[in-house]
Amino acid sequence: MTDNDTDRSRLTRRGFVAGTLATGAAAAVPPAAQAAAARSTPAGHTRRADVVVVGAGFAGLTAARQVAHAGHSVVVVEARDRVGGRVWNHHLGGGVVSERGGTFVGPTQDRVLALAQQLGVHKFDTYDTGMDVYYADGQRSTYSDTGLLGTAPPDPQAMTETIVNVERLDQMSTQVPVNAPWEAVNAAEWEGYTLDRWIDENSRTPHFRQLVHTATRPIFGAEPRELSLLFVLFYIASSGNEKNPGTFERNFDTRNGGQMWRFVGGSQLVAIKMAHQLGSRVVLDSPVRRIEQNGRGVTVVSDRVTVRAKRAIVAVPPALAGRIDYEPLLPFERDQLTQRYGQGTLTKVAAVYDRPFWREAGLTGTAVSLTGPVTATFDDSPPQASSKRGPGIIFGFVGGDDARAHARLSMSARRAAVLNQFVAFFGPKAKQARGYFETSWSGERWTRGCPVGIPSTGALLAYGPWLRKPIGRIHWAGTETSNFWNGYMDGAVRSGERAAAEVLRGL
Amino acid sequence: MTDNDTDRSRLTRRGFVAGTLATGAAAAVPPAAQAAAARSTPAGHTRRADVVVVGAGFAGLTAARQVAHAGHSVVVVEARDRVGGRVWNHHLGGGVVSERGGTFVGPTQDRVLALAQQLGVHKFDTYDTGMDVYYADGQRSTYSDTGLLGTAPPDPQAMTETIVNVERLDQMSTQVPVNAPWEAVNAAEWEGYTLDRWIDENSRTPHFRQLVHTATRPIFGAEPRELSLLFVLFYIASSGNEKNPGTFERNFDTRNGGQMWRFVGGSQLVAIKMAHQLGSRVVLDSPVRRIEQNGRGVTVVSDRVTVRAKRAIVAVPPALAGRIDYEPLLPFERDQLTQRYGQGTLTKVAAVYDRPFWREAGLTGTAVSLTGPVTATFDDSPPQASSKRGPGIIFGFVGGDDARAHARLSMSARRAAVLNQFVAFFGPKAKQARGYFETSWSGERWTRGCPVGIPSTGALLAYGPWLRKPIGRIHWAGTETSNFWNGYMDGAVRSGERAAAEVLRGL
Repeated sequence: MTDNDTDRSRLTRRGFVAGTLATGAAAAVPPAAQAAAARSTPAGHTRRADVVVVGAGFAGLTAARQVAHAGHSVVVVEARDRVGGRVWNHHLGGGVVSERGGTFVGPTQDRVLALAQQLGVHKFDTYDTGMDVYYADGQRSTYSDTGLLGTAPPDPQAMTETIVNVERLDQMSTQVPVNAPWEAVNAAEWEGYTLDRWIDENSRTPHFRQLVHTATRPIFGAEPRELSLLFVLFYIASSGNEKNPGTFERNFDTRNGGQMWRFVGGSQLVAIKMAHQLGSRVVLDSPVRRIEQNGRGVTVVSDRVTVRAKRAIVAVPPALAGRIDYEPLLPFERDQLTQRYGQGTLTKVAAVYDRPFWREAGLTGTAVSLTGPVTATFDDSPPQASSKRGPGIIFGFVGGDDARAHARLSMSARRAAVLNQFVAFFGPKAKQARGYFETSWSGERWTRGCPVGIPSTGALLAYGPWLRKPIGRIHWAGTETSNFWNGYMDGAVRSGERAAAEVLRGL
Repeated sequence: MTDNDTDRSRLTRRGFVAGTLATGAAAAVPPAAQAAAARSTPAGHTRRADVVVVGAGFAGLTAARQVAHAGHSVVVVEARDRVGGRVWNHHLGGGVVSERGGTFVGPTQDRVLALAQQLGVHKFDTYDTGMDVYYADGQRSTYSDTGLLGTAPPDPQAMTETIVNVERLDQMSTQVPVNAPWEAVNAAEWEGYTLDRWIDENSRTPHFRQLVHTATRPIFGAEPRELSLLFVLFYIASSGNEKNPGTFERNFDTRNGGQMWRFVGGSQLVAIKMAHQLGSRVVLDSPVRRIEQNGRGVTVVSDRVTVRAKRAIVAVPPALAGRIDYEPLLPFERDQLTQRYGQGTLTKVAAVYDRPFWREAGLTGTAVSLTGPVTATFDDSPPQASSKRGPGIIFGFVGGDDARAHARLSMSARRAAVLNQFVAFFGPKAKQARGYFETSWSGERWTRGCPVGIPSTGALLAYGPWLRKPIGRIHWAGTETSNFWNGYMDGAVRSGERAAAEVLRGL
């Protein structure tokens, strides 16, 4: 139904398996490790390695790279015909790239920034010159995100409550240990609250309540009623690093927030470069169906290859990890955790224009809207774009109930609904899109929802430690397992580094 | 870790596949249907039938039986080496049977009662003569369940709030349409409430709050914080039939409630008799991995057989249905529903005694305790038991947080903890158990939790209709899809009848 079509950024199966894409960049991996990997690659359907990684997203590739760097052999098995997971470039021709999934990075996201730097992927500023748009009650206003609220709109009807409640949530989040949110003193009480209930008890203005939905739809792909308060507080605490406590604002801010920078060449380039380094260690198009372990090793059975290894790292979302057949069975706590960790509901929509015309009008391209389908937009034009040079790209987030309602429309009705909003935000020129594409992440077989997995109320308290507790020879990675920047590319990279360290200690 | 060992009630693989157990009882299925089924059973690994059913629990077997009755061919594919799903007899020797899973039936559970009657499985009264035990603050008291509160204890510290809040919940539940709880006028608000929050707003006494946990642990296998208020209200509304609106009381009452009767021969006998009638149509030991459909038919791929049919009925819990690989992909709404529908957490524990000694002391064997691990017990002695004739069996429910804590103990510590509680409830003779067994349903590979699947907050509103909406040639059954007695054997039977009717309309 959606335009999730084959993309030129997908690397062919043959490329990786035959290792023909293992070009010069692979020199970053020590030759010994390369040789070990080569020895472990017989012609048949079974391969042997020290470590097998399930999933070639940011988490899995990072883990594999660390294992290879340490001189051990590794095989990465990926279900898709491309790497990157929730990070996926969309090529528009002429070298112009837009992102279907994870796009932005920002301060305190140290690990993904360091990784990109190592790989020679450069960052640039998200376009943020001028005024943001706020759309409420059919009225457009503009504001500067250098003000008190950052990217949150200074709506006089909601401003006080926004400031007070964001501050309250930030304060409460300081009581949530990022390594073990289930150990927060108030964990049991906060697991009994949905965010919806908490907002209802702490707010009196309809605009602020609507603004909360406007925020949770892009940030979580969910309505406030779908979110445990403990999880929200953890997510806030997690939006920082070891030195800088997390804040809610970093989740929605461009300036000094999680949307501050983008990657030249598109965010997927980070994954593609890692995969190039790993070369034939990466097997595409091969969904993992079964993982067996015993005292001697672990065997990962996938459609195209069976890998025998000493340790496995499963680097896919909990909801997908739960669909793999494990022998012996995992402890019930791990299984019940994965039953309670559905992926969010998020569709990304994008319109392509001849030029970023909003810049001439003094607009950043960022809009916040109390009504959907799109509740947030950003300028996603390529780095070289200017008011004279195209193309200009605006993307929007359609999340939660909006995503579910949007999916029931025809593609032409969806396009019309989105472009009508863009006209309301940025003026009549927004109607003249020369391209339009959508990515419905809930319909992606090997993701099943974005941006992140969301535990049901009570799940973190009941089963949280099982998110990343190794079970025998099986270790867990993926952004959902990260203590910092959970749900973001940085969290995925951190989780891969942590899982690799665990495994290397056990080899 | 638990005593879920192979049981004599398991019917051997060969029995069903070879059809040797298709004895006289099979005459209840029309000969034409039998012949059709026989024709569709080639020696090889592929079978053809009009309808294929996934799962040989009460829902799947009921559906298959209806299809066969209508003269169509059907094959049932079951992962386990036995039929019955969450209903499983435990043979204690000498013809004595105890139940590891679903046990009781009661008034308004018309469909399972009618089915049992057709199959010649007789019911008898749950032992309910004498006084129930209430255990709170280390003190035991006794009470009669013929009083105002039924099986709920008349605790003076909690009584008023119990009456008021049960009445409130019952009243609210009348606003929830059992066929479409998501259409309740207040659905969005109630999806933002966990039961925990609602109780907190409506209660002031610690005993009543504890009593709510005592109730939700056996009824849902969950803590109040894990339950959407909308789902709880639906569950209450569902605890009745077309003529008698549901009440919360029916969920915990013996007299006139869901625990009123038991089946002679154990509840699994209903499933076993259905399977006998179906004979070689039932294939055991064959987990379904993949379901493909196109304009011409549906193909169910399982470990031991591939079945090609016109229609499929998937009769397993949503969490397990979501683990099957569908081609083409199901709509994302269905998939996200199954990601948000974890199975409850329930362990059933049972002690076997020479005689039901509590009866001599004027006790029913029913106990309600504010402290765990066991928060509710029942007399599960065989129908012929008496104060002079054994054995006597007490089973207890360990649910939610209690089940999770209990699982962390050694088996001997678990046994000691449970028997110590039984001593506190029923006196020192309870220490002299001659047998003890547990069934941890969360650890059962082909159930993954009991008694029922629990939607996360917001899931029913977002995706409820997809619980039983057919998708192409695939229809859905299982107690989670039932409008009445959802979560019970009766709901499973109703769902099987409904799914069979859908399929028969389409053949």
